[in-house]
Amino acid sequence: MHIDHIGVAVSDIEEAARVYKLLGLEIKNIEEVPSQKVRVAMLPLGESKVELLEPLEPDSPIQKFMDKKGSGIHHLAVAVDDVQAELEKLKKEGVRLINEEPVPGAGGALIAFVHPKETGGVLLELCQHA
Amino acid sequence: MHIDHIGVAVSDIEEAARVYKLLGLEIKNIEEVPSQKVRVAMLPLGESKVELLEPLEPDSPIQKFMDKKGSGIHHLAVAVDDVQAELEKLKKEGVRLINEEPVPGAGGALIAFVHPKETGGVLLELCQHA
Repeated sequence: MHIDHIGVAVSDIEEAARVYKLLGLEIKNIEEVPSQKVRVAMLPLGESKVELLEPLEPDSPIQKFMDKKGSGIHHLAVAVDDVQAELEKLKKEGVRLINEEPVPGAGGALIAFVHPKETGGVLLELCQHA
Repeated sequence: MHIDHIGVAVSDIEEAARVYKLLGLEIKNIEEVPSQKVRVAMLPLGESKVELLEPLEPDSPIQKFMDKKGSGIHHLAVAVDDVQAELEKLKKEGVRLINEEPVPGAGGALIAFVHPKETGGVLLELCQHA
């Protein structure tokens, strides 16, 4: 298991990427995810990535997050081998989940979010790559 | 370069660690850092760690953060080879820093924080291990 990525809500990808680029990171690709109404830039960092999330519409979940909390870290994603098995384990222990079943994520991944009330306030994504 | 750790502000380490433990993480060690008035638990996760920060006093910086924003991710720490060299690079480009010079961190590390206004709202720690 390892950190897959850190999702960061930003109002402007290019502006937010400046310091990361000065530190040697590079934007590997930028894609639009219409279902979430965001533009997503991935900056590889060791075995992980910094994921910059820029809302495309005022009703994007990322825009709503920024309206409440400002820009900044939105979620922590952990790579797991079997997201379904991890969800079963957590459900059995009564852990509150945002997704009771895995949903499709970017790049063909299967993902599910654990409720922040259960993780010290962290929006925790479990992420199984294809 | 890689993610050294994710710092998470929590009101109770044991309670916050529950889900991480169910996912297979373990608390490697807990130490008190009196200068920051916090108890710190480290949970290794691949080449990174989840760092749970529990305030020991009402005037701990972590307690003040939680008073404003609630519990959750407090900072992102990136491991660098030479924190002084990275700071010089950023200063030359006019990047606002919280620490113009490295300061001692936990475990003999040299650390410095970049201002969140420069990083898409992320409190970014540069961390050079001894």
